[in-house]
Amino acid sequence: MSKLSHYDEAGEAHMVDVSGKTATRREATAGAFVELSEAVLAALPQNPKGNPLEVARFAGIMAAKQTSSLIPMCHPLALSFVDVAATVVAGGVKIEATAATTAGTGVEMEAMVAASVAALTVYDMTKALDKGIRIREVVLLRKSGGKSGDYVRSEV
Amino acid sequence: MSKLSHYDEAGEAHMVDVSGKTATRREATAGAFVELSEAVLAALPQNPKGNPLEVARFAGIMAAKQTSSLIPMCHPLALSFVDVAATVVAGGVKIEATAATTAGTGVEMEAMVAASVAALTVYDMTKALDKGIRIREVVLLRKSGGKSGDYVRSEV
Amino acid sequence: MSKLSHYDEAGEAHMVDVSGKTATRREATAGAFVELSEAVLAALPQNPKGNPLEVARFAGIMAAKQTSSLIPMCHPLALSFVDVAATVVAGGVKIEATAATTAGTGVEMEAMVAASVAALTVYDMTKALDKGIRIREVVLLRKSGGKSGDYVRSEV
Amino acid sequence: MSKLSHYDEAGEAHMVDVSGKTATRREATAGAFVELSEAVLAALPQNPKGNPLEVARFAGIMAAKQTSSLIPMCHPLALSFVDVAATVVAGGVKIEATAATTAGTGVEMEAMVAASVAALTVYDMTKALDKGIRIREVVLLRKSGGKSGDYVRSEV
Amino acid sequence: MSKLSHYDEAGEAHMVDVSGKTATRREATAGAFVELSEAVLAALPQNPKGNPLEVARFAGIMAAKQTSSLIPMCHPLALSFVDVAATVVAGGVKIEATAATTAGTGVEMEAMVAASVAALTVYDMTKALDKGIRIREVVLLRKSGGKSGDYVRSEV
Amino acid sequence: MSKLSHYDEAGEAHMVDVSGKTATRREATAGAFVELSEAVLAALPQNPKGNPLEVARFAGIMAAKQTSSLIPMCHPLALSFVDVAATVVAGGVKIEATAATTAGTGVEMEAMVAASVAALTVYDMTKALDKGIRIREVVLLRKSGGKSGDYVRSEV
Repeated sequence: MSKLSHYDEAGEAHMVDVSGKTATRREATAGAFVELSEAVLAALPQNPKGNPLEVARFAGIMAAKQTSSLIPMCHPLALSFVDVAATVVAGGVKIEATAATTAGTGVEMEAMVAASVAALTVYDMTKALDKGIRIREVVLLRKSGGKSGDYVRSEV
Repeated sequence: MSKLSHYDEAGEAHMVDVSGKTATRREATAGAFVELSEAVLAALPQNPKGNPLEVARFAGIMAAKQTSSLIPMCHPLALSFVDVAATVVAGGVKIEATAATTAGTGVEMEAMVAASVAALTVYDMTKALDKGIRIREVVLLRKSGGKSGDYVRSEV
Repeated sequence: MSKLSHYDEAGEAHMVDVSGKTATRREATAGAFVELSEAVLAALPQNPKGNPLEVARFAGIMAAKQTSSLIPMCHPLALSFVDVAATVVAGGVKIEATAATTAGTGVEMEAMVAASVAALTVYDMTKALDKGIRIREVVLLRKSGGKSGDYVRSEV
Repeated sequence: MSKLSHYDEAGEAHMVDVSGKTATRREATAGAFVELSEAVLAALPQNPKGNPLEVARFAGIMAAKQTSSLIPMCHPLALSFVDVAATVVAGGVKIEATAATTAGTGVEMEAMVAASVAALTVYDMTKALDKGIRIREVVLLRKSGGKSGDYVRSEV
Repeated sequence: MSKLSHYDEAGEAHMVDVSGKTATRREATAGAFVELSEAVLAALPQNPKGNPLEVARFAGIMAAKQTSSLIPMCHPLALSFVDVAATVVAGGVKIEATAATTAGTGVEMEAMVAASVAALTVYDMTKALDKGIRIREVVLLRKSGGKSGDYVRSEV
Repeated sequence: MSKLSHYDEAGEAHMVDVSGKTATRREATAGAFVELSEAVLAALPQNPKGNPLEVARFAGIMAAKQTSSLIPMCHPLALSFVDVAATVVAGGVKIEATAATTAGTGVEMEAMVAASVAALTVYDMTKALDKGIRIREVVLLRKSGGKSGDYVRSEV
């Protein structure tokens, strides 16, 4: 089994040195799910004046750009693309967040942060109705590019 | 059923005006769970030179202070306390994050953001071993103070 | 005529010491106008899936919270309320931004920053159509609270 | 007429994917004007101990670096140059802000943000004298580089 | 001897809970010294168009407001005053930074961060002339307010 | 003697335009020393549950990524590596911070900021025991890459 990439033999956490890595296109998509009761789902406004999930989308996009300020060992990098989709589905709101860069390191964490903050924003908008709302399944759905190769999460 | 607190009749999201609310002590605790395989758990270094979960703890504490920059409708406020615990348990790492303030609005989102970012940091430290790692159960565990009263999540 | 509040006799800029000021409710509203051609106004999407001016609204609300990081001599303070309205009117998009606090210093700059960033976001969304778009009339519309008293901008 | 670059057919705002764009040198200059009465202009200190417009210049330079945190659909990028000039002219203070990068996307917004924040800082320094001060003419003056070609604002 | 305030018996670092502390006026002043050779001191421009130490002053003032984002266990708080003085003296540039608040916790770190960042900015402006420049004597000069009482650094 | 790189003939500070510079690997290491009494050194917890200097290490690493937000004339850039070591030595805690990038400008300031903030964090953790603690010797230890060539600080 390979080792934890952030740890040396002494057990201290370090940022990985990506100086020698080739700058190639890398993309990652993460997901999150905000579980909502029927009553809360029904209360989500759906009307021409404003789609409430837009707040969550923008919060996620903006948070992706703060990833290296939030996650200690993440490298600051130029992102060529970030997008977040928030969709009402049976049982809640499904979030998918994608980030891309041309750099020497991947963007899994940018996608994961975007999905998490979008989900937290949905929570913030709905918590007055139900404090028991749960965010679950914050996961990496797929990634491409980089030495570790492509990854697609297998369906459960 | 009460209404979404951030939405007006036109369906537009707004920050709640807390100008008239009394500044009282408010506290909230949120939890998150990072599901890890036995192999990943075994690889987490446990030694005198550094407890790796400390990185996650600090990231969570620092993220709580960024809550109003991340969640669009959150009020910036002075926090009197933030703490995060990260514990290795059967099946993964359990996170608990607490925030407190004396203000006119609560700190649920500060606790939720701290728990999420601590969990994301554990993910970042372990993702080289297993891209399928899942963050689940990001939830509010309890809160006290404020007009909406105390809340304790019932055990599942 | 009173003096520039940020300058001492030597001409050096300083932050005003508000330690002795009483914490009272203060509110300020600022405006901005983004002048758009008929063609650009017609291209602004108006549909049930998303009101594009929502992006500008959220950007303005979030920027208000960054005021003390952007304007060197502004005090960091807890905001009890921020709101931004963006409306399509004849000749462009009209922005109004309001901020409120209970503190020893006012929130004019928070309102001005929110209005400016909302206007800049409208510019960003429309600049592909017309690079000549102009932001004009970034002004304080009214303020209340504080020693300097209330202010309402007279109509032009 | 071309389309709004940030909107898809469903009317949702998105960040533009610049992954495929070539990294070339791009530069943009924006302007802003802070209209000041004769009395306020006379009160601006002009002396060897400190040029007050320096505060505005630095605020603008530092704000350019926060552009992607302020404008939701802007890409974070490495800036190779930012400069701001603030000059007392008849009727007020004229701001010009320039940003440059070698990247796959332009820096118009970085220049616009720098000019706006420099103007807001002038407003903050003078507002004690006159609450009616107006920021006007926040515009793109010129840009070079990128697929959309060069642009120079025509004189009015 | 009293204990490290941030550590519990298990040796884990924590933020101190200041919820129960009374909000009183607290002030702190820190100093720093940037040691410069005669040649570098002579090269520091001294002229009517701009005092170069102003950049350092503004950087220090703005950094004080970022203290809780930089120092993990610091509480975010509203500052009522920040000021930085940078003076050319024999052998270098002397920095003094003061911060004040009315809160349940002190502002020593805000003053220390302001002094450090002002010193680092002087270093940045002079490093092209001499890479061997040294920042030394970053110290707390005095503090007042709070349970631990007043402190004045004794002269060396 | 060469000139201050940030100043023009008029004595105004500017960011250096690095647009034309070649992107090559650049690395810099800075040091800082936090002078502690024997009593304070003895109180620093040393145990399996957590190495307290880890907080300082993480704070330094995260601060390096904020360099361009803190130092007015620094360019925002992608960092390929940051690391901080904090070691208990005779008389105090020795900090060494390293930053690396592949860019058109160097990373001396990133290393200097990381060392300073790590030192300030040690100060924050120990100040309850001794307000007279001193940070000294914040210096550049070595740098490589870039037109100005390599540099190694000579031993004192």
